[in-house]
Formats: sequence, C-alpha cells, structure tokens
Amino acid sequence: MPTPYIKQYLMTAGPTPLPPAVSQVMAEPILYHRAPAFIEVYARVLERLPAVFGAAGDVLTFAASGSGAMESAVSNLVRPNEPAVVASCGKFGERWNDLCDGFGAATHHVDVGWGNRVEAADLDRALSQSGANVAFTTLSETSTGVVNDLAALGEVARSHDAILGVDAVSALGAIPVDQDKNGIDVVVAGSQKALMCPPGLAFASVSDRALEHAAQTGGAGRFYFDWNRTAKGQRKDPPDSPFTPAVTLFRALDVALDLIDQEGLDQVYARHRLLGSAMRAAAKALELELYGPEDENANVVTAVKLPDSVDGTKVPKMMRDTYGFTIAGGQNQLKGKIARIAHCGYYGPFDILSTITAFEMTLRELGADVELGAGVAAGQQVLLEAGVPAGAAA
Amino acid sequence: MPTPYIKQYLMTAGPTPLPPAVSQVMAEPILYHRAPAFIEVYARVLERLPAVFGAAGDVLTFAASGSGAMESAVSNLVRPNEPAVVASCGKFGERWNDLCDGFGAATHHVDVGWGNRVEAADLDRALSQSGANVAFTTLSETSTGVVNDLAALGEVARSHDAILGVDAVSALGAIPVDQDKNGIDVVVAGSQKALMCPPGLAFASVSDRALEHAAQTGGAGRFYFDWNRTAKGQRKDPPDSPFTPAVTLFRALDVALDLIDQEGLDQVYARHRLLGSAMRAAAKALELELYGPEDENANVVTAVKLPDSVDGTKVPKMMRDTYGFTIAGGQNQLKGKIARIAHCGYYGPFDILSTITAFEMTLRELGADVELGAGVAAGQQVLLEAGVPAGAAA
Repeated sequence: MPTPYIKQYLMTAGPTPLPPAVSQVMAEPILYHRAPAFIEVYARVLERLPAVFGAAGDVLTFAASGSGAMESAVSNLVRPNEPAVVASCGKFGERWNDLCDGFGAATHHVDVGWGNRVEAADLDRALSQSGANVAFTTLSETSTGVVNDLAALGEVARSHDAILGVDAVSALGAIPVDQDKNGIDVVVAGSQKALMCPPGLAFASVSDRALEHAAQTGGAGRFYFDWNRTAKGQRKDPPDSPFTPAVTLFRALDVALDLIDQEGLDQVYARHRLLGSAMRAAAKALELELYGPEDENANVVTAVKLPDSVDGTKVPKMMRDTYGFTIAGGQNQLKGKIARIAHCGYYGPFDILSTITAFEMTLRELGADVELGAGVAAGQQVLLEAGVPAGAAA
Repeated sequence: MPTPYIKQYLMTAGPTPLPPAVSQVMAEPILYHRAPAFIEVYARVLERLPAVFGAAGDVLTFAASGSGAMESAVSNLVRPNEPAVVASCGKFGERWNDLCDGFGAATHHVDVGWGNRVEAADLDRALSQSGANVAFTTLSETSTGVVNDLAALGEVARSHDAILGVDAVSALGAIPVDQDKNGIDVVVAGSQKALMCPPGLAFASVSDRALEHAAQTGGAGRFYFDWNRTAKGQRKDPPDSPFTPAVTLFRALDVALDLIDQEGLDQVYARHRLLGSAMRAAAKALELELYGPEDENANVVTAVKLPDSVDGTKVPKMMRDTYGFTIAGGQNQLKGKIARIAHCGYYGPFDILSTITAFEMTLRELGADVELGAGVAAGQQVLLEAGVPAGAAA
C-alpha cells in the first residue's frame, strides 16, 4: 500500500481549529498595548463580548487558561470557612470543588455522577441544606458532553438569592448562554473553544451584584484575578488593562468576533445544532450508544460509548496516527470507554461527515462489527433534511 | 510637504518586536495540547528555558501576564500575617508590595525611591528588622531603567537563609540572571520582553527549596498558580500541563529559543550591552541627563530626563504620531519627565540609531536646543569602536 499523506483534522473540544483569517492576523507585527492601534482593538473586543454571553454587564478579560477564569470566580466569590455549593457532573465540575476547597470554603459538593445532568432539584437541595449564598456549576461538561439546563438552574439560584457561577468554557459561542435572561450572575469562559481562537484568554462575565459581592472583601487573597481591579481598568475611556494583555490573542479574537458577527449568533447556534444532530444520528446508525442523556441541546461535543469488542484506548490513537483525525478519548474513569468528537467552533457539516468516515474505518479496523458508510448516511440524511448549507436550518 | 508614509517602529520594553519567524509560526494550524506534535514543542521549551535563567531547576510556565508569575511567587511563598520583605525602586517593585498586602502578609516594604538602586544593605536591614524568611525585589525596574545587583542581593538573602523572589520580567534574556550562581530561589519573568514573543506566557524558575516551602501550606489560597501542581505536570514524562497551555505562544517561544540558541546567550547579552552603551552615549552627546545611576549593566531600557524647555508629555506622542516610533514616557510621578527607549529583545544597532534620529527631531520640533545628528554620531562612534556587527563586541 502506498503511504498516504496524513492530512490533519482537529476535532477536539479545545483547542479547536482556527479560521485562516484568525491565524493570519497573529502573524502581523505586534502592537504596544498602550498605543491607539491596540487600544482600538481592545475596546472593540470588550464592546462586543457581552452579546456572546447574552449579557449587558462587564466581560472581564484575563491572560489565562479557562481555569484561570474559574479561579477568578472562586477567589472573588467565596469566603474562607463560609459555605459554597458545587453541583458537578464531570471532570470540569469537579474542578470547581477543588478550587473552592483550595480557597478555604466550606464546600458543599453535590456530585450527580459523570454522564448525568445536574437537575434543578439537586441545586435547590444543596442551597437549602448548606445555606450558601454562592454556587458553582457547569453549562457544557466537556468530559461527558452533557449540557445542563441553565434556565432551570438560574431560577433555583435566584429563588435562594444566591450568586451562581457557571463554567461555560466549552459552551460559549456554541450554544446560547442567555446570561441575563437566565439571571446568572457569573459566567466564565475561554478563547479556545467556539470562539475560534487559540487558548490563553479567559473571560468572566459578571453582574454588578457579583462585583459588589467581590468588593466586600476588599480584594484579600487575590490580585491578578481581582475582578474589581480589571473592571476599573476596562471601564475607563479608553479602556486600560491593569496588566499587559495578550495582545496577539486579542487581535485573533477581534477577527473571530467579526466572523461571528458576519454569520450571526443565531446562525452560529443553528449550525452547532445541526452538527450535533448529524453526529448523534451517525452514532445511532452505527448502533453505538450515546454517553449521557440524548439531548438536542448537547451540541458542543458528542460522547459515544465504544463497543466492548474493541480496545477503546486504541480508538483516538488510530484515528490520529493512521487517519489524521485528532479526537479525544475518555478522561479518568472513562478512559477507553468513550470517544469524544467535538463540533464547537470553526466546523462545517463536511468536517463531521469526514470524521465519521474515519471513525467507521477505525472501529472496523479494531474489530468492531460496523457497517461502513452507515453512520455517514445517517449524518447526510440529517443534513439534507435540514437543508445544507446550515443557514437553511434556522 | 508630502505626507510621509509613517512606518512603525516599536521601541517599548514589552511588547517588543517579534522576529518574522516567530510571527509566522503563530499563523500555522493550531495543535491539540495533548497530541504528540504539541507535546514535543512543550517538552523542548521546558528543556531549554532553564539555561536562559542560568538555573538547573524547574521553570514553571503559566498562561498569564508577567504579573501572574509575580502573583504565583507571592501566593506560593507568603503566609497570612507572617512577615515578608519587599525592596522596591519603582513601579514594578511596588507591585510586589501590593501583592504581599493582597495576600495578607505583614509586609515590610523598603522603598528606596524611583531611580535609585536597591542596595544590599537595604535588603540586609529589612531582613534583620522584620525577621522575614521571604523577600521580593526587582532585577530590571522597567519604570526607571535601573538594574539591581543580583549577586549582592542574593548573597544577603542567603546570609539570612531567606528565599528571595526576583522580578526579571524585563531582564530575562537581555542581561544575565545567573540564578543558580547568584543563589536566587525564585525568578519570575514573561514572554514579551527579550524573549521576543507576544505577551501571555509567564514563568517562575524555582529551586527545590522554594517548591518545598510552597508545599508546606498544602496549596491553600491558590490553584491555577500553585507551583507544585504545575511542577508535578511538567515533571511527567512526557510533560503534561495541568491546564490548557497557550499553545500558539509556546510555538512562538520554541522558535524564539531557536534564535537565541543560534546567536548564543553570551552574544545576546553582548548585543544588549552594546545597544545600551550606544543609547547612553547618544543621550549624553545631546546633553540630556540619564535618569538613575549611570550603569554599564542597565541595558534593558534607557530612561532619559527630558529638558525643561519641552513639554515632556508631547515627546512620546510626537515620536509615535509624527515619526512612527513608539517609545514609552514616564509612569506615575515621572509622567512628562522622562522618555524610556527600550533595547531588550529583537533589536540591532540600526534600530537604536534610527530611534535616536527621530528623538533628536522630536526634541528640536518641541523647542529644545538640540544639535541634530550629535546623538547619532555618538552612538555610531560606540558601535564602530566595538566593531559592528555586534558579534565582534564579545
């Protein structure tokens, strides 16, 4: 057999592929962060970010990974020895627990188990039992593909007059967050998922109430991630970052927000819905079980249970090394049990279909009884019924 | 007069200009941080960073601004209500004080004043009086151009058996840090100065003793910046970042470290010495006073006092808007009093000479009695005596 040229396809839930225009702007000469040329970019990004969160407040920006934004939420909201609720359903939800413990909270951790949804009743009970006035949960749990119902969780938090901090790192830009409509005080996110940028920018979209709560401690125990320090700088005219911002990544984000504006946020969400539907239909046609509840809103990453007949740890490896498709396997206790195929960010229908082709070939090569083309056909059917291009799906 | 094309020259101490090869690599398709293609880059960068610090220990990396690395030092080293010494001589030294206060230390702050050096005796007295076992100071104070004597400060810290944390954000790669030789436990730095990369990567080069000191608190009050968490990941084979690293910036740094390797660290330092000498000679020939002590090691940024005859706040503005040279003015109480011209990073002799030409024209246009060409001639003389290209200066 001739050695094929193994062209690379990135299908992970962060980093995600960058649109060419985003990549190219990073090769431009760098700008001084206090010169007008950059301040213009900075102001334009700050102006446009809130719409992506569905919020009218401040979106605070940090040079950090998404976990840095989570740390900002915990260090600004929790108080040593005071109760804080964490409602988790996977690896990233558990990070809230580690953070709250690290910052000395009396953490009340409701772990509903990997692959399940956090239900409103879970959060309600935890807030009642703990008496906490802050709680943390996850919108899209990247480790399992599960998407929680933010409207319901937000309503519960409001009924307890508690501040809810939501990890939307992999959700933002893929599915609607509707922060203000859902009454969520704090939503944190990162640049490297559906925002189609490299990792390194982290965001905290915060309500005035959250900022006031943070201010009550006077900034003790934090500095770089202190919300009010960054809010003060960002609210200046022109805005002024208290620390050197990641200039290159801001330029990338400025271009990515142009692309999102051009497509229109509603179309962006419709496209993600379509890709998620196609992927789920393919899995079912291949007689593979979805991990977690089947959910038409779970359009960030699709987790598929791998058949017992194959060595699951080999699936991501063969997908990548033999066929050039980088997908994720399971983390922690799910290692070897699931495959995670992402569709958050710069993806079109044929990215999904070609991934399915490679996935079918991988499973077949590893010994599974898979009908080649069956998953692809189901995905094609979904696309045709919705009317491709994706725009027609809205 | 025809409108000139205002070509842009960046002469600030961070962000600094990027070599074309560094810019270009950021336009490459992004890599998944857990795939071999990135892990190879990550491992190679981690392997090569210690040499730049003159250290044999771990250089911990964070997606953050330089201030994030400073925060990591304070959050890992200070204890609430226990004494910590800060010895400062400018804006960035004062940040150590804000950080120590923010993290609840009983801060003993020795402020020797902007434009002065921190002397060994200052640190010695502060450590004696406070009984602190941790202290923080600055190698190159970017706000004033002053460079402190790390060998002398390190010796004092060792004589007190104290852990010294040094801000080398603007110094690293421009002047020798010699961390191990100088017996410094902790040196923090950033990517956007002499390392010729964009802002967004922060470093903490830490001794085993510093890691042990940090571990004693079990990680309370920090998570993202917890040194032992990152050290544990980086020490794995292959190394594994606990958080999504800033993939694009790592690739930039990988290329920048290639360039530093090719030039050779000794040559890099010699080049910075030459550029600093030329800039100081030009200032003196223009009968401008240097701000701070004249120092043959102060080769990161040159601060020049502006003549009383000009409105100093107009100097950086005219340099940038009329001639295309972005330099920095003074910060805080030095606003309008000094100009800061940087030469840390991707600079050659003719960057300095052309900046001097624009500087002379700016001063003349703003009404100063400046002999056009006098500064340039003095700079040229320094370069010719040293033998240009810079390599011959070593």
